[in-house]
Amino acid sequence: MFSNANTKNASSYSSGPQLMNMANLTIAPCAIIMVGLPARGKTYMAKKLSRYLNWIGLNTKAFSVGDYRRKASSSFNNLSDFYDPNNIEASKVREKCILDALGDLQAFLMDKGEVGVFDATNGRRDERQHIFDVLTIKCGFKTFFVESFCHGDKIVEANIRQVKINHPDYRGLTVEEAVADFKKKIKRLELEYETIDEIKDEHLSYMKIIDQGRMFLVNKVHGHVESRVVYYLMNIHVLPRTIYLTRHGESVMNLAGRIGGDGDLSENGVEFSKVLTDYVNNLNKPNLKIWTSLMKRTIQTVSGLNNQKEHWKALNEIDAGVCEGMTYQEIHEKYPEEFALRDNDKYHYRYPGGESYEDLVARLEPVIMELERQEDVLVICHQAVARCLLAYFMDKPQEELPYLKIPLHNIIKLTPVAYGCEIEFINLNVKAVDTHRPLPANLQVTRSAHDALATVPPTPTTLSI
Amino acid sequence: MFSNANTKNASSYSSGPQLMNMANLTIAPCAIIMVGLPARGKTYMAKKLSRYLNWIGLNTKAFSVGDYRRKASSSFNNLSDFYDPNNIEASKVREKCILDALGDLQAFLMDKGEVGVFDATNGRRDERQHIFDVLTIKCGFKTFFVESFCHGDKIVEANIRQVKINHPDYRGLTVEEAVADFKKKIKRLELEYETIDEIKDEHLSYMKIIDQGRMFLVNKVHGHVESRVVYYLMNIHVLPRTIYLTRHGESVMNLAGRIGGDGDLSENGVEFSKVLTDYVNNLNKPNLKIWTSLMKRTIQTVSGLNNQKEHWKALNEIDAGVCEGMTYQEIHEKYPEEFALRDNDKYHYRYPGGESYEDLVARLEPVIMELERQEDVLVICHQAVARCLLAYFMDKPQEELPYLKIPLHNIIKLTPVAYGCEIEFINLNVKAVDTHRPLPANLQVTRSAHDALATVPPTPTTLSI
Repeated sequence: MFSNANTKNASSYSSGPQLMNMANLTIAPCAIIMVGLPARGKTYMAKKLSRYLNWIGLNTKAFSVGDYRRKASSSFNNLSDFYDPNNIEASKVREKCILDALGDLQAFLMDKGEVGVFDATNGRRDERQHIFDVLTIKCGFKTFFVESFCHGDKIVEANIRQVKINHPDYRGLTVEEAVADFKKKIKRLELEYETIDEIKDEHLSYMKIIDQGRMFLVNKVHGHVESRVVYYLMNIHVLPRTIYLTRHGESVMNLAGRIGGDGDLSENGVEFSKVLTDYVNNLNKPNLKIWTSLMKRTIQTVSGLNNQKEHWKALNEIDAGVCEGMTYQEIHEKYPEEFALRDNDKYHYRYPGGESYEDLVARLEPVIMELERQEDVLVICHQAVARCLLAYFMDKPQEELPYLKIPLHNIIKLTPVAYGCEIEFINLNVKAVDTHRPLPANLQVTRSAHDALATVPPTPTTLSI
Repeated sequence: MFSNANTKNASSYSSGPQLMNMANLTIAPCAIIMVGLPARGKTYMAKKLSRYLNWIGLNTKAFSVGDYRRKASSSFNNLSDFYDPNNIEASKVREKCILDALGDLQAFLMDKGEVGVFDATNGRRDERQHIFDVLTIKCGFKTFFVESFCHGDKIVEANIRQVKINHPDYRGLTVEEAVADFKKKIKRLELEYETIDEIKDEHLSYMKIIDQGRMFLVNKVHGHVESRVVYYLMNIHVLPRTIYLTRHGESVMNLAGRIGGDGDLSENGVEFSKVLTDYVNNLNKPNLKIWTSLMKRTIQTVSGLNNQKEHWKALNEIDAGVCEGMTYQEIHEKYPEEFALRDNDKYHYRYPGGESYEDLVARLEPVIMELERQEDVLVICHQAVARCLLAYFMDKPQEELPYLKIPLHNIIKLTPVAYGCEIEFINLNVKAVDTHRPLPANLQVTRSAHDALATVPPTPTTLSI
């Protein structure tokens, strides 16, 4: 069915051959069409899925009809009026919003987009058929429907109270007014809602999520992207929980301004380990799991804690290849060109014999998947690894990722809220060197040592020279 | 529901901390209960799934009631008689076979087993409830049901003709006799078969595979193992196809008897590349995809081919860490203890600063998953990587894996058949050095250089000394 789809090369790799990871399969652009009544978690899933797909390297964008409506409907008194089937003026506006959003999604996939997520009710079968006709029959994109369907009112009611009443739609209303109006809106949409049906819709490629993950129905999934979307949506959950992310305590290599290696903790690092132990014990969360890398400095950092521990090779620091154990000064002296190339495209740059940030994201994908499945976890990792993980939670683009600030001896507390993640940096007030080297101004290969090293943070060793 | 399950540590890592990959999660033993009428691909899935789970490091065993029956029922004339509900003697034998197989599965999970696959019809709801009561309520194991359900006779008929008529059950019968008897057996079992039901079975954790993967129904999946099982069974297919597996052409490093590195092809290697190009072009499979690692020697090997190419970092050779680029003589001189440790447990041994075979399998898991999703693929890789991939297809245990013979300049042709894989080594008759070092007799750390190097294959360089 999709054999006429435009295929294109998802991403090209600047230096060296095209890299095969999630991001580099030759794929037809794919439209993911959300289906479901309001308060079924569609926007939550659309946003989370887009964040994940962008992070694994697929150029993804969500198009929420709600955003188009908010721009267009400020003249209506309340949402239920706007969804009144007898309100002809509103019907026209609704229709136009849907068409505009769909047109923008289409343009995005025609241009550089790889996955477009269409976030709307899409509740009628004829609406869905129209979308399929436009996107697949006419444009040659793959179309994958994702329906969220809930039995009973419990989940819906909880969703309304958690998410919707704080929504821009309801500014200026009381909680009960907002809930009442929202329920009225749902009732109106329910009148014409047709759930995806095993028989009537058997020609479509779809996934039906029932009662927020209690049950899944998956039909005609063939492509790599759809297969990953199914796996991801099957693994996420909506239970409240907290992820604590931190680097190992300061190591002797940090003190010496050297990158990589497998050094021990410094005195400050040992002190951090003690303070962290008290902090974690005071959380009083006996079920908190601890994940470390296989490197000594992460394992030493949690040696005082008795929580269940797991050690992931995938959490090891970025492999700097021939530059392992060197200072920035030494790298510039020995490999000035490599050093400049890295500054020119830090995300894609691969150390000779080592890894790039892009490689690191591919290696961390199973960690993220397992993290999504877990509840409370404390992850002890490394600067580059923490940047990749934080970029996932904060939805940071590839170009910002390698420059995220992850100071030593801080805990990053991540708490899922409505459509994203609340982030808090907790400084445990134990002295440590700064290891953050911002992008210098001069990126030329022929730059002087002074320019190349302008942003290298000072260390006790360099200070004493 | 499973909170009382016995948890145990799946696997411990001999040197260094416990490694977190698929194999090292703390898990409760899990029983996977196949459900389905005959000729629905249950045994195919049970065997394939067991092979996959063992390969990723979970101690898994399939218990097929058919095997128990074959031992017990040699006195019956034919299978349909044996399944005649009025045949009381046969009923008793059938009952006993089921109980014996279930008992053995239980004993396996009580001992060192992590996943047991119970391969039987399990067609009645009360039978399944009994299994759940015994394994989950009584023993505390997780129970996950996997039903294969087919509409219509087309798939079933094809299965019967492909698999069943060559089965040990039908030795001595004509094809038509065998098919007729088999269909009669199915008819008898159909009388009491109850498919897993969304309402009646909503308390169970299950996956229902409809029409060999057209549709999936997934209910109450919480654990890591079940989640992986679902993902795997969603990605496999039964289309006929061939996988070609080969190493790069001989490299200059091979000639010098040195391991690792990123060397160019030798003259023989270039010759192999030409012969391979002709071989592949003569296959006349324009849709054959080519996968290589990122290393020069694999990319050079297929430089003459115009098929679609993808380059996987995950296919790179095992990282020998501090031993990269060294000869075995040099490794023994510099790190005699490490060299002996490796010989003592080659699968788990991790090179300092490098990888183990166990690490390699974790890194190759996404490659296998994508390979399962594809049709014809030619994989150009490396000795250790090819050993891991071949072990997956040949169901080889961890202790044999690092010693599988993968000579240079041979193509390994893998064709899926009935319950496994047909394997053919095709020698392209281009000269190459031998790189296979068998396990030496003396494994002691204090062994002499002579003993440590006894099995190192000769190379032009060593020969000329």
